[in-house]
Amino acid sequence: MAWHVSVYVTLKPSVMDPQGATVQRALNQMGYKAVTDVRVGKFTELEFEAGLSEADVKKQADEICDKLLANPNIESYRFTVEKK
Amino acid sequence: MAWHVSVYVTLKPSVMDPQGATVQRALNQMGYKAVTDVRVGKFTELEFEAGLSEADVKKQADEICDKLLANPNIESYRFTVEKK
Repeated sequence: MAWHVSVYVTLKPSVMDPQGATVQRALNQMGYKAVTDVRVGKFTELEFEAGLSEADVKKQADEICDKLLANPNIESYRFTVEKK
Repeated sequence: MAWHVSVYVTLKPSVMDPQGATVQRALNQMGYKAVTDVRVGKFTELEFEAGLSEADVKKQADEICDKLLANPNIESYRFTVEKK
């Protein structure tokens, strides 16, 4: 048993996403004309020791997102915590 | 209204993840000693035209993952579809 945290980092809606635009163009050229928008983000899975409380895991995950995984100027993040 | 597809691409468990190992080392050095494993994946959001059926969206999303978003040799993927 350990704490499993799934972190989703996405660009804020107002921020241009050239990588997403490139993927969209590629898909349209491949024949997937119904794809109207693509945004590329990051997905990170963290394992924490089982000994921590859920509140501790959430607090640490929040700090880790702010300090390392996301750039708060241009990205937003959310995460889920499960014990498994 | 449009179809919103969230795609999660992760390395298969047997595949080494040097980027994840680097993030874990950084976190441990920053004082987050309870983080025992980190895996880095990709998160992509696709918008499809609302006119498609849900079955069509799933079929196209599946093909897109296989052909462009994931490398089936080393990565696995899953996606969720919502209308919003």
